[in-house]
This record gives sequence, C-alpha cells and structure tokens, in this order.
Amino acid sequence: MKPLRTAIIGFGKIAADQHVPAIQDNDRFELAASASRHGSGPTPHFTSHTDLIAQLQDLNCAAITTPPGPRYGIARDCIEAGLHCLLEKPPTATLGEIEELRQLADAKGVTLFTTWHAQHNPAVTAAAALLEGQRVAEMRITWHESVHKWHPGQQWIFEAGGFGVFDPAINAFSIATRIFPGPLFVREAKLQVPGNAQTPVTAEIGMESPACEGPIRCSLDFLKEDGEEWTIAIRTAAGQQIELREGGKQLFVDGAEQAAEGPGEYPDLYRSFADLIDCRQSLVDVEPLRLVADCLLVGERAEIAPITM
Amino acid sequence: MKPLRTAIIGFGKIAADQHVPAIQDNDRFELAASASRHGSGPTPHFTSHTDLIAQLQDLNCAAITTPPGPRYGIARDCIEAGLHCLLEKPPTATLGEIEELRQLADAKGVTLFTTWHAQHNPAVTAAAALLEGQRVAEMRITWHESVHKWHPGQQWIFEAGGFGVFDPAINAFSIATRIFPGPLFVREAKLQVPGNAQTPVTAEIGMESPACEGPIRCSLDFLKEDGEEWTIAIRTAAGQQIELREGGKQLFVDGAEQAAEGPGEYPDLYRSFADLIDCRQSLVDVEPLRLVADCLLVGERAEIAPITM
Repeated sequence: MKPLRTAIIGFGKIAADQHVPAIQDNDRFELAASASRHGSGPTPHFTSHTDLIAQLQDLNCAAITTPPGPRYGIARDCIEAGLHCLLEKPPTATLGEIEELRQLADAKGVTLFTTWHAQHNPAVTAAAALLEGQRVAEMRITWHESVHKWHPGQQWIFEAGGFGVFDPAINAFSIATRIFPGPLFVREAKLQVPGNAQTPVTAEIGMESPACEGPIRCSLDFLKEDGEEWTIAIRTAAGQQIELREGGKQLFVDGAEQAAEGPGEYPDLYRSFADLIDCRQSLVDVEPLRLVADCLLVGERAEIAPITM
Repeated sequence: MKPLRTAIIGFGKIAADQHVPAIQDNDRFELAASASRHGSGPTPHFTSHTDLIAQLQDLNCAAITTPPGPRYGIARDCIEAGLHCLLEKPPTATLGEIEELRQLADAKGVTLFTTWHAQHNPAVTAAAALLEGQRVAEMRITWHESVHKWHPGQQWIFEAGGFGVFDPAINAFSIATRIFPGPLFVREAKLQVPGNAQTPVTAEIGMESPACEGPIRCSLDFLKEDGEEWTIAIRTAAGQQIELREGGKQLFVDGAEQAAEGPGEYPDLYRSFADLIDCRQSLVDVEPLRLVADCLLVGERAEIAPITM
C-alpha cells in the first residue's frame, strides 16, 4: 500500500520530539514536508501552509501542530484541499471552530482527527478497559505543577484565551473523559486568578455524573513549586481503587502497579489516524475542551496576588 | 388525531404567559398537568416532576420551563419515561448536559427540542430568508438594556453561572445564528465585571465568519438606564441593509419597515414541536450557548465599580 504523504504544519518542540519519529516509524505514513512561519523543519520546508498546499499536489494528510489560535484557518484550508487532518490538542481556540471543521470535513469526505495524546497512553487504555460498564463511588483528580518550571517565560498562557491552569489540566480532562464510564458534568468551579493575569492558576472543581454515587473533585494548581502530582484516582462502587499516576503513565489497582503494554502515545495516535482514514471516518472529540468551557460558564473567580511570569 | 398530552414542569411567568396559551391554542396539544416546587399551576398540579411522571401514565410530552440549573435532571427523568421534551432557553446550565440529553433522547427515540423563542419571531424568519446564501459585508449587534428595570432584585443573574449580560444577549446570539448565512466564531471579548458580581455586565465582542468580509461586532450592556436598544444590523456584500429592531420584532430593509406575518414566537414554537414529533426527530441547537462559552474561553476581564443589585 502506498504510504500516506503527510505534512507537518507548525514546527515546534512537539512536532520535532513526537510527530516526526511517530510518522517515520509508521509504514503507513511518509513525511512529505513541513511548514512554519519562523524557524525550520524537515525539508521541503515552507513558510506558509498555503504555499505548501499549492506546491505539493500529491499530499494526503496534514498534522497541524501550531498553537490552537491559528489552527482553524489552517485546517479549513487543508480540508478544502482534500487533506486528512490531525489536530494537536486542544483542537481549536473555541468550540465554534471545531464544530465547523467537523462539518467541513464531513462535507469534503476527509478524515478529521482531534488528538488528545494523553488518551493514547497504554496505562490510560488499560484503565478505561478496567472501568468499562462499572459504577463509580468517587473520583479525585489532582493536577499540581509549577508553571515556572514547565512554561518558563510563556506569558501567553496567562493572557486571554491562554487557558492558564487548564492548559495542563485539559490533559487530565482528556484522560478522565476517556476512562470514566459515564458523562461528566461541571457543577461548580472556584477559580483563582492573579491580579496581573487573565486566566486561572488554581481551580477547585466539583463535578457530577449519573454513573457516580459520590463526589467528583478536581484540584488544579499551576503554582505548585514542590510536590508536583498528576493523579486521577477512582474508587469503583465495587470497592476497587484504580489510580493513574504521573499524568497517565502509571496504572495502580488497589495499590499494585500494573504492566500496561502498547505502542506509546504518539505511535498509537498515528495508528489510530491510519485506521480512521482507512474507514473513511472522523474522530472529533470536544469533551475535554467543553469541560473547560463549562468550568468558565459556572465558575466563580477570586483575584489573588500578582504572580511573577 | 389524538392530542399530545403535555405537562408543564416549572411554572413561572413564562409558563403562564406564553406556554399555557400556546398549548391551548394548538389542536395538536392538550395541557395535561403542571408541576412546580413552589406556587401553583394548571391542575392537576404536582410539587415534584417525579410524582407527575409516576401518576400521569398517559402523558406524551413535557415542556420544561424551570431555571436552567435543574433542567438536566428533570429532562433526563422525562426522557427515560418516554416523553418528548421541549426545553426553554438556555437548554441547560452547561454544554456537557445538553450533549448528554441529545444522546439520551436519541437512544430512547423521543423528540428533544431546544427552543430559542426569539428565533421564532416572524421578522426573524423573514430576515433569515432574505440573507440565505448571501455574503455579508458587516454585522453589528447592539443589546443594551437596564438590568434594574428588567430583572429587579434578581441577584442570581450576577452570581456564578448566572450569565450576567449574556442572559439577555443569548437571545441576540440565537437570532444571529438563525439569520447569519455562515458560522460565527468569537475572536475576542472584553468583559466588564463589577467588583461585587461574578458575571459580566458589559461585553464588547469581536467575531469572524468565512461568510463575512468585514467586522462583526457585538456591544452588550446591562447597565443602560436610558436609550435601551436591541438591534442586529447587517449590511450584505451586495449593499443591502437588513436590520432587526426591538429584539427581533421589527424588520427593516434599507430603512423601510417590512411586514412579517406568522403565528408568533410561542405558537410557532409549538407548531415546530408537533412537526418534530411527527417526523420522530430532535432539534438540539447549542450554538447560542456555545457562543457564550466561547466568549468566556477567549474573554478578557476588567473589574469595574460594584453595582447596586
């Protein structure tokens, strides 16, 4: 079978570290080109996606790994050019844009794939299988990290549309919506916003689900300088304790670590992309982004002291 | 044909003023019962929707006119009881809830109808017909009113989840999404929030659309004590000026008022409900609520002086 010729549009760290090797290690894909406004990428390299689309007539796919802001416009151009599109997370800046892309891809008959890479961790897949069809007693999400360590100098994260603590926490939401055996509804969200920021740096969120008998609590903290933690802990109604630690990398059942085998996040993601293209299907999952929007719809804000950015 | 036996759940002013006469004037429906926790409604009257569902075995439909907060739980119970459901606007408190109701209604084979009453104004229907298939040069939404005049003493509107100026403006969004010949994307939103409130009282919003060549601006103001205005003004690329005034009640084309005939908002809405039930279809329109969520996702907040509530 002829490999799917794939361009990477937006060439930053995630493209170099994850997308390039995942494409190169998968026989179904061939890295055909890259585009980025600044800097360089695999050749042939273009400084605009429109030039790339115009000049590579035999392209099949585009992996769009720019920041979410410009992603809608780029994806629209790629879909109109008949390319199957893979979108890094979060797929777009707003819910309206991704819904429109879904309709454009359907109309054009191309595959649109909203990737949430954390969902493709083998431990997450194993946790989802364990929880399928079960009732839940309670869930606790703890997502505590240091913005200064992981996003040094990235002021955009504190600006309007920059997501703040939801930038890392949307990964937690993507795991939670993947493994939880029912829908999740946001009931309340207490958000702390520094006086010099537009986005929250901590959030205490209460959720509910018809599949859950007890509390669902999320503790998000972007200012945790030590004792960082990325845990999702679920107690089932049957009394089993299922925990994902280290951001979905490790699975513990009743305290015992479980082996979880799989190709890994990005290799699995490109495997899924090929399957979707073969089946002429799209996978447009907006749930993690919708949870963030719902936190803002019902959220209560409190201003806290300015932070050093 | 046997009329559809319909209960009204949540019996406040909108139920008494609009839903009761619209049901009574439509041969396809029969007002069967009402429920509300406090106060009374048409008999037989129940104080809980679960009692109502349990005791009226021959019910076909429920019109759920409570505040949006409890609507998800009530609608879920009604759908599970096999009732066709009509939801007042906004359909639910969060986007997650309405998506889940859509899936429940599909699974159960009942009709779910998210009503946005302003969309059913005859002038709005006429404006939508005029704009169909056109390109737009620019759009301006002006939604200025006095919260003190229209929502006296209603403190909930300023609390978390209370929508603030988006409570009236979601009607404007519902009209705009109905008449605009393309998708609308929020690009920026400047929100002013009083120091003693959780929700914005003014908003200046910039939108974009692939169907629009120029600016799309929304000016929302909840503190306009005189000079109130509810206008949506669109200039088409062909140069025609189409204006809806008075919240969608009046249509002007190039300055001349147009006659627009129709049954009126709520009678048209029940006519649509009967059509949907006959066709075994649902109509779940989340676009106005999604626009509000997108304003909050990209919005920039500024604190202003406390207001008198």
